[in-house]
Amino acid sequence: MLAEIITIGDEILIGQIVDTNSAWMAQQLNSAGIRVKQISSVSDDKQHILTALAEAAERVDIILITGGLGPTKDDITKNTLAEYFGVGMVENEAALNNVLKIFEKYNRPMLDINRLQATVPANCEVIVNKNGTAPGMWFNVDGKIYVSMPGVPFEMMYMMEEEVIPKLKASFKLPFIVHKTILTVGEGESYLSERIADIEDALPAHIKLAYLPKLGQVRLRLSGQGYDEVALTGDINKQAQKIVERVGAFVVAEEDIQIEQAILNYMAKKGFTLSVAESCTGGYISHLFTQHAGSSKVFFGGAISYSYELKESLLDVKHETLTKYGAVSEETVTEMVEGALRNFKSDFAIAVTGIAGPDGGMPDKPVGTVWIAVACAKKTVKKKFTFGSKRQQNIERSATSALFMLNTLLKDIEK
Amino acid sequence: MLAEIITIGDEILIGQIVDTNSAWMAQQLNSAGIRVKQISSVSDDKQHILTALAEAAERVDIILITGGLGPTKDDITKNTLAEYFGVGMVENEAALNNVLKIFEKYNRPMLDINRLQATVPANCEVIVNKNGTAPGMWFNVDGKIYVSMPGVPFEMMYMMEEEVIPKLKASFKLPFIVHKTILTVGEGESYLSERIADIEDALPAHIKLAYLPKLGQVRLRLSGQGYDEVALTGDINKQAQKIVERVGAFVVAEEDIQIEQAILNYMAKKGFTLSVAESCTGGYISHLFTQHAGSSKVFFGGAISYSYELKESLLDVKHETLTKYGAVSEETVTEMVEGALRNFKSDFAIAVTGIAGPDGGMPDKPVGTVWIAVACAKKTVKKKFTFGSKRQQNIERSATSALFMLNTLLKDIEK
Repeated sequence: MLAEIITIGDEILIGQIVDTNSAWMAQQLNSAGIRVKQISSVSDDKQHILTALAEAAERVDIILITGGLGPTKDDITKNTLAEYFGVGMVENEAALNNVLKIFEKYNRPMLDINRLQATVPANCEVIVNKNGTAPGMWFNVDGKIYVSMPGVPFEMMYMMEEEVIPKLKASFKLPFIVHKTILTVGEGESYLSERIADIEDALPAHIKLAYLPKLGQVRLRLSGQGYDEVALTGDINKQAQKIVERVGAFVVAEEDIQIEQAILNYMAKKGFTLSVAESCTGGYISHLFTQHAGSSKVFFGGAISYSYELKESLLDVKHETLTKYGAVSEETVTEMVEGALRNFKSDFAIAVTGIAGPDGGMPDKPVGTVWIAVACAKKTVKKKFTFGSKRQQNIERSATSALFMLNTLLKDIEK
Repeated sequence: MLAEIITIGDEILIGQIVDTNSAWMAQQLNSAGIRVKQISSVSDDKQHILTALAEAAERVDIILITGGLGPTKDDITKNTLAEYFGVGMVENEAALNNVLKIFEKYNRPMLDINRLQATVPANCEVIVNKNGTAPGMWFNVDGKIYVSMPGVPFEMMYMMEEEVIPKLKASFKLPFIVHKTILTVGEGESYLSERIADIEDALPAHIKLAYLPKLGQVRLRLSGQGYDEVALTGDINKQAQKIVERVGAFVVAEEDIQIEQAILNYMAKKGFTLSVAESCTGGYISHLFTQHAGSSKVFFGGAISYSYELKESLLDVKHETLTKYGAVSEETVTEMVEGALRNFKSDFAIAVTGIAGPDGGMPDKPVGTVWIAVACAKKTVKKKFTFGSKRQQNIERSATSALFMLNTLLKDIEK
C-alpha cells in the first residue's frame, strides 16, 4: 500500500520552517506497513494544490495532506478539496461543538472566522481535533483515501495516532515493512561497503540495504516487505547478523537509535553515571542526552561554563590556566573534565571547550578549534579537533566527537 | 523564476531523517530571487526519479536535486540522469583529481568504487566537491537548468553558496523577492487576524500576508515580488508598519528571528547578562541561546541541575526544600533562580524544573507539570504550567514559556 504526503504552505517553500511533520508521519505509516512513495511540499495556491492532488492520486492509494486549515485568509486547503471533489461546503455539528467547547474552556469570545472552522466539504467524514479548532477530514473517493490534517505538529500527531492510523489499518490489508538499522562509527561509507560487498550482493530480492552517512557515523539499514512478519523479521535479522559479524568493530548499536541513546542504554545497564562541562557546545550535549526518557538514571547534569568565571567557580579551572594557556587549550579542558568528575561526583565526565565562531578566532587557534576530554577515575582522554567555520556545524561536530570519545572510553574500560 | 527541489533517498521517505537540506536551499534560493514552487522527496527508484524530473520540468525552470550520489549501490542518481538526458557516462578529470587528492590527504587506499565517483553523464559540467568525493553536476538542457548535488549537508551547502547560486545569478535576470516577518507572542492567530483584517483586505496585489503559528507564537509574514527592490521594500515596510502600530503590544521582533535571538539582541544593547538553572529542559534553553553567534556577550552559562545533588551544590537549593516540597515546586524553582543570580553573578536568570515524562508523574504533579521562574535583582516572577504527556513537547514548551517570561520581565523592568 502506497501513500503520499502533501504539505501545503509557503513557509516550507521559503525555508522558514523545516518540515518535521513529514518525517514523523512517514515513520508512523511505515510502522503500519504503508510505504511512503513521495513527499510533496506545495504552495498556498489553489491550482497548484489541485495539480498535486491529481498527480498523487495517479501514484498512490492514500494521500495525507497537512497544513492550510487555519482560520485566516491564506488557508485554502478545505475549499480547494471541495473543488477537487466537486462538492459544496457544509457546517459540521461535531466540529462546531468542538470549536464552541474550546472557546468556552479559554473563556474567549468566538469570532465568525472561528465558526467557519466547522465548515467542511460535504463529502468528508470529520475527525474531531481534540487539541485545536481546525477539524481533520477523511475522504474515501474512487477507492482512494484522502486525509486532511492541520499543520500544527501536536494537533496532527494526535489525529494520526488516535484516528488516522487505526482507520487505515481497518480499511486495508497491510503488508509488514521491517527495517533493521546498524549504527556504525569510525569507518567511512565506501570502506564499509567494500567490507560487506559480498553480503550485499547475495541479499535476497525482498531485502534492500541502504547506507546513511552523517558526520562520521554511518547507519546501515536493511529493509524488507512481506505478509509473513515472523519470516520477514527472521530473514532481516539473519542478514544483519552477517553484517555485524563482519564489521563489528565499528558497530555502536544494532537498532535505529542515536549514539547518545546507545551510550545511555549501556551506562544504565552498567550502573554508570555521567556529568558534563560544556563550553562551546553550550548545552547541546546535555540536550542530546536529556531529550531521551530515562536519561536521569545516568545523567546528573553539569555546567554550561560559557564564561571564564563559571569555568573557575563551577569547575575549579585555575585562573592562571585560563590566562596562561587560554580557555581553548589542553590544560583547560583537562581541568574542566577533572573538575566535573570531582564536583559533580559522576563516574564519567565530558568536557568541551572551543571556538564555535564565526568570531573569536586567533592566528594559532582559528574558528573551529575545539578541545574535547572524556574521563573516568581510571583514565582521561583528550583530543584537539579542527573543524570548519560554521557555528552550528562546529557545535554538532563537537558533540558527535565527544560522544564517540565517550563511547570508546566506555569500551576501553570494559576490556 | 521558479525552482523545484527534488531530494532522492528512502531515508527521508521512511522518516529516518528530517529533510533540513530543502529548507536551507529554499532560503538561499529565495534570497537570490528564485521562488521554490515545490519540494519533492522521492525514493531511490529509477522510474520514480525519471517521473519526478519530467514533472518538475513541466512546472519550473530550475531543478535542484540532492542525494543518491554516494559510492554505494543504492546511489543511482547520476546513472538515472544520464538515462533521462539520453547520454552516456564519462570519467571527468577534475572530479578524478579531486577524489585522488582527498584519498592522498587522508592517506587511505582508493577503491574502485571511489574512482567511479569521478564518472558523470557526458552532457554535464562538473562542480568540484571541495568537501567530499562525489562531484556536483550542472546541466543546461532545453532552457532548463538541472543541478545534482550530494545529500550530505555541508557538501551541498558549500556547493550552493560557492558555485550554484552565483551561476544561477549569472544565468538569469532574477526578480527581487522581499519578505518581512513580524514575530508576535501572547495572542492567537484568529484574534490577530481579526485585529488587522482591514489592513489585510487592503493589501496591494503584489504583497501577500501569511500567519505562521507555533507554540504560542505567531509570525506574520509579508511577501512581495518585483524588479524594483527599493520600491518593493518600501511597500512592504509600509504595510508592516501599519500592522506593528495595530498589534504592537504583542510584537517581539520586526524581523525573521527566533525569540531567543530577539532577547539576546535586546540584552546586548542594554548591557544585561544572563544565566540559567535548567532541570527538565536539560540544556535546551542554553542551546537555544548559544547556537547564536555573539551570545557569549550576554550569556554566562549556568547549571544543568538534573540531580537533587547538583541543585544543592550548584544552586544552593536547600535539602529540606527538596524533601519537603519536591524538586518540582514553587519553593525549589525560586531557590534555583535566586541561586543562579547569586552564584553565576548575572543580571537576569531563568530557572526551570518539571516532569518532562513519560515517567515520574505523581497524582498531584502529573507528567507535564513545570515550574518556571525568571528573575533580576528587582523582581522574581514564577509560574506553574501544566503541559502534556510528550517529553519533547514538554521540553520545547517549557523553553518557549521561559523565553516569553524573560521577555516580559525585560519589558516590565524597562517601564
